[in-house]
Amino acid sequence: MKTFNRVTEADLSFFRGLMPGRVFSGEEISNDYDHDEMTEYGHFLPEAVLQAASAEEICAVLKYCNEHLIPVTPRGAGTGLCGGCVAIHGGVVLSTEKMKKVLEVDTRNMTATVEPGVLLMEFPKALEGTGLFYPPDPGEKTATMGGNAMTNAGGMRAVRFGVTRDYVLGMDVALADGTLIHLGGKTVKTSSGYSLIDLMIGSEGTLGFLTRLTVKLVPEPKVNLSLLMPFDDLDACIQAVPQVLASGCEPTAVEFMEREVISCAETYLGKQFPDTSANAYLLVRLDGPSAEALQPAMDELTNLALSIGAKDVLLADTDERKESIWNARGAFLEAIKGSTTTMDECDVVVPRDLIPAFVHRMVEIGKEAEVRIRSFGHAGDGNLHIYVCRDDLPEDAWKQKVAWVMEQLYSAAREMGGEVSGEHGIGHAKKAFLKESVGETQMRLMAGIKAAFDPNGILNPGKIVE
Amino acid sequence: MKTFNRVTEADLSFFRGLMPGRVFSGEEISNDYDHDEMTEYGHFLPEAVLQAASAEEICAVLKYCNEHLIPVTPRGAGTGLCGGCVAIHGGVVLSTEKMKKVLEVDTRNMTATVEPGVLLMEFPKALEGTGLFYPPDPGEKTATMGGNAMTNAGGMRAVRFGVTRDYVLGMDVALADGTLIHLGGKTVKTSSGYSLIDLMIGSEGTLGFLTRLTVKLVPEPKVNLSLLMPFDDLDACIQAVPQVLASGCEPTAVEFMEREVISCAETYLGKQFPDTSANAYLLVRLDGPSAEALQPAMDELTNLALSIGAKDVLLADTDERKESIWNARGAFLEAIKGSTTTMDECDVVVPRDLIPAFVHRMVEIGKEAEVRIRSFGHAGDGNLHIYVCRDDLPEDAWKQKVAWVMEQLYSAAREMGGEVSGEHGIGHAKKAFLKESVGETQMRLMAGIKAAFDPNGILNPGKIVE
Repeated sequence: MKTFNRVTEADLSFFRGLMPGRVFSGEEISNDYDHDEMTEYGHFLPEAVLQAASAEEICAVLKYCNEHLIPVTPRGAGTGLCGGCVAIHGGVVLSTEKMKKVLEVDTRNMTATVEPGVLLMEFPKALEGTGLFYPPDPGEKTATMGGNAMTNAGGMRAVRFGVTRDYVLGMDVALADGTLIHLGGKTVKTSSGYSLIDLMIGSEGTLGFLTRLTVKLVPEPKVNLSLLMPFDDLDACIQAVPQVLASGCEPTAVEFMEREVISCAETYLGKQFPDTSANAYLLVRLDGPSAEALQPAMDELTNLALSIGAKDVLLADTDERKESIWNARGAFLEAIKGSTTTMDECDVVVPRDLIPAFVHRMVEIGKEAEVRIRSFGHAGDGNLHIYVCRDDLPEDAWKQKVAWVMEQLYSAAREMGGEVSGEHGIGHAKKAFLKESVGETQMRLMAGIKAAFDPNGILNPGKIVE
Repeated sequence: MKTFNRVTEADLSFFRGLMPGRVFSGEEISNDYDHDEMTEYGHFLPEAVLQAASAEEICAVLKYCNEHLIPVTPRGAGTGLCGGCVAIHGGVVLSTEKMKKVLEVDTRNMTATVEPGVLLMEFPKALEGTGLFYPPDPGEKTATMGGNAMTNAGGMRAVRFGVTRDYVLGMDVALADGTLIHLGGKTVKTSSGYSLIDLMIGSEGTLGFLTRLTVKLVPEPKVNLSLLMPFDDLDACIQAVPQVLASGCEPTAVEFMEREVISCAETYLGKQFPDTSANAYLLVRLDGPSAEALQPAMDELTNLALSIGAKDVLLADTDERKESIWNARGAFLEAIKGSTTTMDECDVVVPRDLIPAFVHRMVEIGKEAEVRIRSFGHAGDGNLHIYVCRDDLPEDAWKQKVAWVMEQLYSAAREMGGEVSGEHGIGHAKKAFLKESVGETQMRLMAGIKAAFDPNGILNPGKIVE
């Protein structure tokens, strides 16, 4: 990596000429830009924040910064969990927050084309009345669609519908030297050389800057319902997952949740969860064309659950019932965050049948370290979200314990054939764990790819790979 | 690219020591190895053919050839259509034809792990009794699963189930220097750095040599049926596609076929197609848990088809009826091939709503060039298979016409936002068209990636990118 230059007054003048009123420096920069959702990973104030309004501006900024060796950190809504959008080497943060237009909804090809800053929670409004929907469903609805694409975000519906990668058809990407390239488009399959678009997805802005995104839409299922299955303990609950998946019932979501996390959410939301009978729950969602069409799957899953130890099967088919369950599920992250002073998190993914073994190991690690660990996750994907809570631990003890716990968790995942991150990404916080997980050779290949795309290393430096 | 060395007696001795009885040189080499299914693209006899039996052998051959600058062309069953597995720069063909073991079927994680040489037609036997199936369904059933992964093969069921890329979870890959890396595994989602596995899929053996493959399986749908919709003309037939897809009926396959291609197949198979009333047909397949469960979709599609000009809707729900239709469809390529002296082919993919426009353009191009063109394709994917037939044209006229026709077809696809290949790949035959389609910048990025993986350029040289 070359030595970067600091942002000078001359640089700021250039940026101000390019994008008047949308360039911030020094004390004009809000502290919001110095971190993402994980303040545990440090605060890094950029030297300038630029709010782009077009692909042309993005290309011009990149060309300039590439020539002047100024780091460029792409940023959407800043809702990441691994420091991916934080300017750890200074330079400029180039934000997509002003690029929020849905440019086209093409109902014949079932695609939509958006600017990268469109929020996940805003996008469905553009689809109203079309009968189409966009399946990726990451928990953080204030995230941007561009950020989702660049981290390959997952979400609850991934079991049936897949992750963001499965819905990205086209991308316009500004390269480090300011060249704009068009990857894919509205075509739904291709075998036309190396899949640069798949390389770009999940690259966290280290290979190029996403300026426009075309996603695949699918016909919206007309009906959904959820089955809440209480179990005596987490083990029985998670053991049920492979059978649920193999049943052919095509569940949209399969989540597990424990009483103690639900209690956190009850406190946080000030609302009761609709069942208090059990220590652990499996939550299964089904989507289909009609309630009648879902009946056979519902019956099969109910019988299956009861035959393998569920104490009951609660049907949520009214909006009120569904909301009371899914709102609790949706609040877990914030609820755990609110229950502790600070925390660290781990987002490993393991083969689905090893979730019980992993959860056992996690509990042991927590006991051994004497820290409070809370977890929940996408049981249907083998993807766990694990939160190590600082509570009232003093700084030194916390740093020591959390480092040991993380090392243990990642090492357990590695031994089970798992990967570092199921859906949150690497950023700068998980870099060392990625290297441990994939090894020197793969890191060298990634560094070679990075060099081919960004020879000066100005694009989001210090993320994923050096 | 460095200057390659010829294979010497010393090299052959090394190979014979490594893999006794599975090294062929000179006149021992069958002519089968000098081409794939498209003899039109030339004959290139390798200097040696090595039949690998293990990853260790593959690594050893690569390490040796990398040090001695000998080109290595990976080859599966040799059923490709763009010269991807042909040794155009000489050197050795390293064949996976002896690596045909299904290593594991993991019913709990719904995965299977295979050696790369397992034939697509053999694989289902390993899944019998598990209730699981492998959705990718390329027409060529004697292809290998490794070849399918390395070309990202598609097939009929892609409309609902996706292409090979969507089912590859793990790969062991030997790099050019003989290092073996493990990509992915049994995990079903990941956001852990650049997706090297997605880069490897469809790279046609130019970045690494696949030694082991782990694929995702899904619960087998218990019932399927097909609807054959005759239309007066192709236009009305293809115009129906977007509505069929938007219906929410989740068709597995949506194929279009014309009378003249069906006639070819009738002659080739010596069997009548079950309907003779129309010039064009749309063929839609549905899969589901039971006939009852499929009834609403069947009714909806029938009403839809009749309302937009279908002359009738024929239901194929018996094995006999289904076979008579799908066997005809499956025989199209061979039937067209058998109807002409030689042919060239084109496998473009365009946005689905532009298939009618593309077909119109294709007919015009054929008329203008005065050559016979036959086509059929995956209407649901926007992927057309177009065959330009030489018939009794003299060599010069044929070369001239086919070059012009291909240029016109690819240029039309490009103008419509399409791509060079939907599922067949690039090989050496489509390289110039890929470059025209994606441009210098993307070719430079691909070359940079190639250099990071294979600095000496020994892996399948002359394919995809220089």
